[in-house]
Amino acid sequence: MEEIFPYQALDVDLYELTMAAGYFHHNYNPTVTFELYVRKLPDTRNYLIAAGIEQAVKYINSLRFSSEEVNYIKSLPVMKDVKPEFFEYLQNYKFSGDIFGLKEGELVFAKEPILQIQASLIEAQILETFLLTTINFQTAVASKASRVVQAAQSDGKDRTILEFGSRRAHGPEAGVLAARAAYIAGCAGTSNVLAGYRYGIPLYGTAAHSWTLAFDSELDAFKKYSEVFPNSSIYLIDTFNTLEGAKRAAQTGYKVFGVRIDSGDLELSSKEVRKILDSNGMNDTIIILSGDLNEYKIENLIDKETPVDSFGVGTQLATSEDAPSLSVVYKLVEVEKNNRHLYRAKICPGKIMYPGKKQIYREVKENNFVKDLIVLNGEKGAQGNKLLIQYVKNGEVIYSFPTLDEIRHYVRKNLQKLPDRFLSLDKKADYKVEFSDKLKTLLSDIETNN
Amino acid sequence: MEEIFPYQALDVDLYELTMAAGYFHHNYNPTVTFELYVRKLPDTRNYLIAAGIEQAVKYINSLRFSSEEVNYIKSLPVMKDVKPEFFEYLQNYKFSGDIFGLKEGELVFAKEPILQIQASLIEAQILETFLLTTINFQTAVASKASRVVQAAQSDGKDRTILEFGSRRAHGPEAGVLAARAAYIAGCAGTSNVLAGYRYGIPLYGTAAHSWTLAFDSELDAFKKYSEVFPNSSIYLIDTFNTLEGAKRAAQTGYKVFGVRIDSGDLELSSKEVRKILDSNGMNDTIIILSGDLNEYKIENLIDKETPVDSFGVGTQLATSEDAPSLSVVYKLVEVEKNNRHLYRAKICPGKIMYPGKKQIYREVKENNFVKDLIVLNGEKGAQGNKLLIQYVKNGEVIYSFPTLDEIRHYVRKNLQKLPDRFLSLDKKADYKVEFSDKLKTLLSDIETNN
Repeated sequence: MEEIFPYQALDVDLYELTMAAGYFHHNYNPTVTFELYVRKLPDTRNYLIAAGIEQAVKYINSLRFSSEEVNYIKSLPVMKDVKPEFFEYLQNYKFSGDIFGLKEGELVFAKEPILQIQASLIEAQILETFLLTTINFQTAVASKASRVVQAAQSDGKDRTILEFGSRRAHGPEAGVLAARAAYIAGCAGTSNVLAGYRYGIPLYGTAAHSWTLAFDSELDAFKKYSEVFPNSSIYLIDTFNTLEGAKRAAQTGYKVFGVRIDSGDLELSSKEVRKILDSNGMNDTIIILSGDLNEYKIENLIDKETPVDSFGVGTQLATSEDAPSLSVVYKLVEVEKNNRHLYRAKICPGKIMYPGKKQIYREVKENNFVKDLIVLNGEKGAQGNKLLIQYVKNGEVIYSFPTLDEIRHYVRKNLQKLPDRFLSLDKKADYKVEFSDKLKTLLSDIETNN
Repeated sequence: MEEIFPYQALDVDLYELTMAAGYFHHNYNPTVTFELYVRKLPDTRNYLIAAGIEQAVKYINSLRFSSEEVNYIKSLPVMKDVKPEFFEYLQNYKFSGDIFGLKEGELVFAKEPILQIQASLIEAQILETFLLTTINFQTAVASKASRVVQAAQSDGKDRTILEFGSRRAHGPEAGVLAARAAYIAGCAGTSNVLAGYRYGIPLYGTAAHSWTLAFDSELDAFKKYSEVFPNSSIYLIDTFNTLEGAKRAAQTGYKVFGVRIDSGDLELSSKEVRKILDSNGMNDTIIILSGDLNEYKIENLIDKETPVDSFGVGTQLATSEDAPSLSVVYKLVEVEKNNRHLYRAKICPGKIMYPGKKQIYREVKENNFVKDLIVLNGEKGAQGNKLLIQYVKNGEVIYSFPTLDEIRHYVRKNLQKLPDRFLSLDKKADYKVEFSDKLKTLLSDIETNN
């Protein structure tokens, strides 16, 4: 289930509303196409995983302005010369255009449209801020999470990543969205209960140091935990001394599902702890490692044959710490006027974009992704699978959204088709994305004429 | 006004609820103190600005579990051996303890308590996730914003910073919270309309490239904007060619409030644009610069005497890009049992903390902050101003929250008392924070006994 948040329609940059008022004033509201894409991949990403599309589409479909919201907008000083009919327009706003986009979980590269909004100029303009923030954040987290998951399985073993980042996410709601993005990218679950409730994501948890500190001794704390959770107890064993903690874990008399180590030298601790557990017949007790982990630290632990079954990853996942934002933009690419298609592009230095509503063809050879070709929508003759599908037609959703597990499965299948060099954590590899001659001609026409 | 979000009580890490269930099972619910603090300052921060405290306190005060929320928690597999009375407890949850904390806008350094929750163990444990994410994010953004504001005024001129980051914030709600944090740290306003509505923050906006691209020519687009917003028009002049854009801005026949440049070499463009504007008698027209700016780029522009009146800063502000999270933690420091105070501290390597409920004294000499002394609460003889004040007593708010403008003013006053070396953008300076002998003794007692 999705939630509509209080006053969500106001969660927009002011200029979307002033531009909308301006278009309205001039009675200028042609059908246009906006495209949302990432300008450039971060240095530490060879691919992105498109995420947040369901939230984006449902936002567009549910967007309405209440009287209270409209009255607030009307009260702003900047709106004082705006025709009153504009506020009636807002009051009656309901998206009636078309939405195209990538499937959620599609691998995506720089300059490839993730969403396309084809609608009247005013309807489409107003959506910009919300669409950018939604796609930006979930795509950033899913892409980071994918790297972390790859690292945990870099020796071919099926270790799990548990997303524990809510406490360091950018506010309470960001944690829930991060959990969703991390899950579709391959994490096994999350600590965030609301993400479990809202999206059905599996929930995981252990115990905090406060549990141990609340009781009179570590052994007492462990026993008391197992009394309540006899089948699922995971002890946090590093409150005082990790190896002593492991020995105490062996003395509780309970079956111990797992132990978690959250500090110190994780490789050495884990190796010693494994010995202690095994020598006490606790071969089934799993080891979970956590503590400011990222894909590099995890790969290093795996390389050193650290005995570990699962990683708890928080901060670096939920904030995509090394690339906390993507250069997502929402650009007007086409205007339909007097039955003519006018192609639009900004050509300011360093930010060149291609005009026109596009389609992406992904070429696959021997079950491997080879390259993408971006063409003007409707161009014939391209090879490969069309990636942009229609979500909404004349304001009605015509797409049946997949479950998160289906998206997760789709991500896994996509990654299997991505050549290995793109999965490297530290070597940059640029996936080949080409633009059709037609698009190049349209761009050079604009460069010539301005 | 604050909002309660749908199912907010579920926005919590699972382990808070399992630990709560465990304490409840053992009928173990002593009065305890948790402290929330930042473990270590990021490399690029010499000080932090405490922010998000009003949201944190109001969350605690309003937290309730609905039947639907309780039923969901009860349905989780991990809860199957938990006594049914625990779910009744949740259903009746209402915080009844005490809350202490820094004033919002206080300068804060590593290991200094920002919030203290003194309450029954279960009541206090459940709050952890929400408090961490709330204080973490707003404090991170306020601290980043303060640097950006300092940079813009580094030659003593009163230039404004406009916060434009919603589109790259971590989801729609993060943008609103970022706007709040940025404003108290000294930004002049935000583009986020909901932040204006909810918090009364001044709203700013210009126009996007899409405005220019929607019309048949740049000049036409400028004129059409001024027709609707004759007194407040800010033209974005870099869609095709910045200098041509400036010349066209001079040809509209309207008074132009400002021009914005969003790409290219901002220093050179701005100098040329200023000349074009002045030679057309537009000396009052302001120049706003934007485009992936941060404090370093801004300081550099000022150093080069770039003519600029205002900066629009987005991504790097709203994500605190170089330090997107703080190492905030929420630690049990004291347990009251049988009328005795038991002091608690985790002593695992690299994460040592001091036990006991604390007070901070900030020493001021000749209107300059000199050092902080952290003592056990109630210790006598310390010099300076006590920083931790009481917000909530027995579950009732006893504090009158300041307005955002009052907090903003308080931040400015605090920064005037901070010696200049801490305001450097690139030189690390460690503010002196000392712990009392009493606290050191309590810590070494714990180290000896575990």
